[in-house]
Amino acid sequence: MTSTLSEDRYFEPARRDLARRLYDTVKHLPLICPHGHVDPAMLAAPHYDYGSPVDLLIIPDHYIFRMLYSHGIALEALGIPRLDGQPVEQDHRRIWQVVADHWHLFRGTPTGIWIRDELATVFGIDEKLTSASAQRIYDQIAEKLAQPEFQPRALFERFNIEVLATTDPATSTLEHHRALRESGWPGRVIPTFRPDAVVNLDTEGWRDQIARLSEITGIDIHDYRSYLAAIQERRVYFKSMGATATDHSAVEASTERLSDAEAEAILSRALRGAASAEDARRFTAHMLNEMARMSAEDGLVMQLHIGALRNHNPRIFARFGRDKGADIPVATEYTRALKSLLDDVGNHPNVTIILFTLDETTYSRELAPLAGHYPALRLGPPWWFFDSLYGMRRFFEAVVANGGIYNTAGFNDDTRAYPSIPVRHDVWRRASADWLAGLVQRHIVDEADALEMIHALAYGLAKEAYRLNG
Amino acid sequence: MTSTLSEDRYFEPARRDLARRLYDTVKHLPLICPHGHVDPAMLAAPHYDYGSPVDLLIIPDHYIFRMLYSHGIALEALGIPRLDGQPVEQDHRRIWQVVADHWHLFRGTPTGIWIRDELATVFGIDEKLTSASAQRIYDQIAEKLAQPEFQPRALFERFNIEVLATTDPATSTLEHHRALRESGWPGRVIPTFRPDAVVNLDTEGWRDQIARLSEITGIDIHDYRSYLAAIQERRVYFKSMGATATDHSAVEASTERLSDAEAEAILSRALRGAASAEDARRFTAHMLNEMARMSAEDGLVMQLHIGALRNHNPRIFARFGRDKGADIPVATEYTRALKSLLDDVGNHPNVTIILFTLDETTYSRELAPLAGHYPALRLGPPWWFFDSLYGMRRFFEAVVANGGIYNTAGFNDDTRAYPSIPVRHDVWRRASADWLAGLVQRHIVDEADALEMIHALAYGLAKEAYRLNG
Amino acid sequence: MTSTLSEDRYFEPARRDLARRLYDTVKHLPLICPHGHVDPAMLAAPHYDYGSPVDLLIIPDHYIFRMLYSHGIALEALGIPRLDGQPVEQDHRRIWQVVADHWHLFRGTPTGIWIRDELATVFGIDEKLTSASAQRIYDQIAEKLAQPEFQPRALFERFNIEVLATTDPATSTLEHHRALRESGWPGRVIPTFRPDAVVNLDTEGWRDQIARLSEITGIDIHDYRSYLAAIQERRVYFKSMGATATDHSAVEASTERLSDAEAEAILSRALRGAASAEDARRFTAHMLNEMARMSAEDGLVMQLHIGALRNHNPRIFARFGRDKGADIPVATEYTRALKSLLDDVGNHPNVTIILFTLDETTYSRELAPLAGHYPALRLGPPWWFFDSLYGMRRFFEAVVANGGIYNTAGFNDDTRAYPSIPVRHDVWRRASADWLAGLVQRHIVDEADALEMIHALAYGLAKEAYRLNG
Repeated sequence: MTSTLSEDRYFEPARRDLARRLYDTVKHLPLICPHGHVDPAMLAAPHYDYGSPVDLLIIPDHYIFRMLYSHGIALEALGIPRLDGQPVEQDHRRIWQVVADHWHLFRGTPTGIWIRDELATVFGIDEKLTSASAQRIYDQIAEKLAQPEFQPRALFERFNIEVLATTDPATSTLEHHRALRESGWPGRVIPTFRPDAVVNLDTEGWRDQIARLSEITGIDIHDYRSYLAAIQERRVYFKSMGATATDHSAVEASTERLSDAEAEAILSRALRGAASAEDARRFTAHMLNEMARMSAEDGLVMQLHIGALRNHNPRIFARFGRDKGADIPVATEYTRALKSLLDDVGNHPNVTIILFTLDETTYSRELAPLAGHYPALRLGPPWWFFDSLYGMRRFFEAVVANGGIYNTAGFNDDTRAYPSIPVRHDVWRRASADWLAGLVQRHIVDEADALEMIHALAYGLAKEAYRLNG
Repeated sequence: MTSTLSEDRYFEPARRDLARRLYDTVKHLPLICPHGHVDPAMLAAPHYDYGSPVDLLIIPDHYIFRMLYSHGIALEALGIPRLDGQPVEQDHRRIWQVVADHWHLFRGTPTGIWIRDELATVFGIDEKLTSASAQRIYDQIAEKLAQPEFQPRALFERFNIEVLATTDPATSTLEHHRALRESGWPGRVIPTFRPDAVVNLDTEGWRDQIARLSEITGIDIHDYRSYLAAIQERRVYFKSMGATATDHSAVEASTERLSDAEAEAILSRALRGAASAEDARRFTAHMLNEMARMSAEDGLVMQLHIGALRNHNPRIFARFGRDKGADIPVATEYTRALKSLLDDVGNHPNVTIILFTLDETTYSRELAPLAGHYPALRLGPPWWFFDSLYGMRRFFEAVVANGGIYNTAGFNDDTRAYPSIPVRHDVWRRASADWLAGLVQRHIVDEADALEMIHALAYGLAKEAYRLNG
Repeated sequence: MTSTLSEDRYFEPARRDLARRLYDTVKHLPLICPHGHVDPAMLAAPHYDYGSPVDLLIIPDHYIFRMLYSHGIALEALGIPRLDGQPVEQDHRRIWQVVADHWHLFRGTPTGIWIRDELATVFGIDEKLTSASAQRIYDQIAEKLAQPEFQPRALFERFNIEVLATTDPATSTLEHHRALRESGWPGRVIPTFRPDAVVNLDTEGWRDQIARLSEITGIDIHDYRSYLAAIQERRVYFKSMGATATDHSAVEASTERLSDAEAEAILSRALRGAASAEDARRFTAHMLNEMARMSAEDGLVMQLHIGALRNHNPRIFARFGRDKGADIPVATEYTRALKSLLDDVGNHPNVTIILFTLDETTYSRELAPLAGHYPALRLGPPWWFFDSLYGMRRFFEAVVANGGIYNTAGFNDDTRAYPSIPVRHDVWRRASADWLAGLVQRHIVDEADALEMIHALAYGLAKEAYRLNG
């Protein structure tokens, strides 16, 4: 497929040639996707039906519908399903038209360039998305999606994905991963162990989750010891299914070590539905330590995603549920908060903890200084609200002067928008090349070093940090 | 008037031509001035006497005298009046000389370029301000100020101001606005309702303010209900005089909904002079919600200016009073603090809240994510300590990647220095053009989009956000 | 010595010629080194033995060994001595090889460019440090160190150091400074009074320090009055030995004025070993005020280094002690915290306080606004984790728009790595020239102003702020 997109996009003109030279050495490298939210069912299905372009590109993408909502477009008008089953817009051509009519809102945003680049490089559509072109583009996408070469496994191969990690609840049977393994298709798709719903006591339906965990492990969870045993059992299972990492989400980075008696007491209250908010907070902080201890034993890389206050808008939450674009970052403290965890495992040779933040001020003040000292720490790439060209530049400028690139974990796309995967890696590779070209131009590194650095940023660091060589 | 100022000032050389092309499409657009501190008396007077150049340019400008003070020059030596009536320097030529002798202090600062550009483009003075040129320049300014074409209304027309909003206390009679309306002069000058002095219980003389509010509304304020009624009455009056917005200032962004009984109890304590600091804090937080509720009804746009710790220097405050360059920003939290307000009106179709911050770290972490979700929120431009070229660039780079430009409220000059108005808009327009040129060069947006964006930033967004189309 | 290093290193290509022109006017100016950690014994010795290249360049440099440690290299393998006297690597060639084998970790970091520039410009070694070149380079360094022209005093003269301040505990006899004075060598090396160990009650061995202070002053410290008298006595002595400044370190910027009775009570508890953590915190805060009061009397410039949480890693601290790369910054508040201090001396004509921060968010939000108002305040250059090219750029962009360059204290190298001194100044001078060239290109300042500004940044401001003209 050809594209009229500039081959020099995202490079500063003054260093275009050099950036291009660096970029060209990595643009065809396989994609390492160690963290994301692609549905494994998509790849497990022998034949997958994407639904309409809106089903694929709009309804699952909170980046898109949150922006439209901020300009007064009801989520119902965008086809977002209501929890109460009340009708929402079903005419997907009409939804697509609304999106196109407001596409100017995305000028200069990551979503704006991801969708443009995706239409061009994945779907071969070079026309600009406007009110006038909307229906033509809809037709073209729909037509492509029906073709065999757009089936998920075909795209996986075309995208040149070397490994794709999904994110899976602790109670998942991983049946899609099993089906994939049994299918004989050679694509490497691995699960990630995400125990938030059984660890964070204030999750809605936490006790149901525990019941499910008991059931799936065959361990009767009635106390702290059996609770830990069940989690441990699941880690073993995930690892056997190819997992190399766990993932943990929390509003704060607090870590703390409770005594066994305290942990037992809190869990006991939780099991009878009597845990307080403070119990939940302390138990989460304690379990981060406990999970790190397990990582020291089983070698699973531990990801920490810190700092999102979930479901900020109660009306949206009541009507549409979670992940509807209403999670908002908060200021986060790491230096003191992570101390308990790092006292335990920060010097441990078998532990890798990858930190993600929604507070950019901590890059240079706390995270790079911590990662530049503790062997166990690596920094994840700019996350969520910061996965823009400017966000990446700020990350490079703030992190690297402290800790270099080798205490980072390279890139991950963190997306649930499957066809956007190559585009997101491409933006990162271009941003990296542009930044490195700037270092070369100013004689901070030489070109030979920059060539090794671009390879590390584009490929090597993620593979190594997530232990994907095995 | 001609000027030897570079027509390409403030553009990066590498994108100069493109920036210039964008800028040229907006440089002559009318000025939208929806927030500022120009004295309406200036425009209401049939003939206005500016006093000396120092009266106009130095004595009211805390940006200037705070810098000089920081280098050991007493405010008395700059003619700043003392509260106790003790003599201060009266020789304005001498004051002007002191300023010129220290003009190097302003190198690289916004004040440095505002004054230079203002002398050149408003007064036609291209000579550099130095010790040697000081008196010549003083003469030239004085001469101009005496000319009819430098009268405030003539400048208003020459500046091509489409609308100018002043900021007025809730108890103002708005007599100057009334005089202006009755004068037959067609310039649009509108008030803004700023109720801080009657809302913030810890204002010096709050009870006097309430007495004044009772008097002007004819409502005997003796309880919470009559207090709200008086405020409501004033909003109606301001709106009838053309106001489209209110303005609220607070150290913290805290919002909270008190029960009527609590509000009543606090107000009652305040009315008898017995409110505590905590009462004041909670009442301010509550009244922000209350004002937002009123905005939902009357459609006045609500501005929040958050984060200045006022009167940090007690010696300066005791000797010279407020607004003497001793207000200092503090770190501010919005995500949790605004939740109560947003729970109430964040999804309301009739509410627009424009947020200003003195904590740049919140641009990308809290404000853009909030504005990129809630229909009621817009972000004001870089405020006060951040109204520099670099401050504008950081604003663009931090805000837009999250929420695009269309969740901002464009520009406002926020100045009490009347002749600096066109210069401040010009700096913003140039900074916008420069930044957009960078987006075009890197193929993030195309030039057609950039042309629409520069128009929005220079003109359209402010007009729309402040509901000035009516 | 010649070097193949680019003469245009660290300049943006688009403004290279202009930056070079500015830089060339200051590159040969003498070095003002008003704050650092060079051992005065090095200069006092008639003949100084540096030991091996590793003794000079690796073992004292926590920037280097913290990075290697973060990648799993034990500090023992780098020759860092253990507190328990257990053996560590003694083969310095082997240590050097390990460093070179991991030199890629420093790509893009300040350490990477300091060492490269130092090898080239101080040692005349242009070869790149790699595994292959390691031993050759080791030989070359060792050979140079044995030459008379590499003796500390010879380097001092070659480096063109006009004045070098060391940092010395309050209880120091300053015998090396005395020896230097008596030697007849004309180099100006002055002490700095750093009383942390006698002021911060939670210092290990605080009571031993007090005993030492009693001994050296001949004042029996048994109450608050005698404690202050002893400190005062030492200030007089340091000043007599050439000191122009004091230096104070604290985790927080808190300042507070205790009553004499409170101060007495806390000190009394401390003297009998019964002070609490809260006592220590409040006493430190109080003593900052007290020291400022003494500065108002004796004119010693007061440096505040705020925001490092020391010894974050208990294993490293237990095994190797302090200053082993495990100090981590924390978020810091200044606006409220410094209020007590500034209420006391902020307007005092005889006081200069130079603030250093490890929280870059405070540059524009708190520090520049404070320094742009209070006559007593100046801002120190980017410190420690921020002394990189990007850190300097952020400093310029955040600080100067608020307060200009004239409220800064210019540069200081803050190093214990003696041969890196000229390189660090050179990086600052180049970064300054590059930034100023950007201002000139965009017509923010003219070239004549930029020439004065580069001189101030490179030389004048440090000399003036630290009162080194005397």
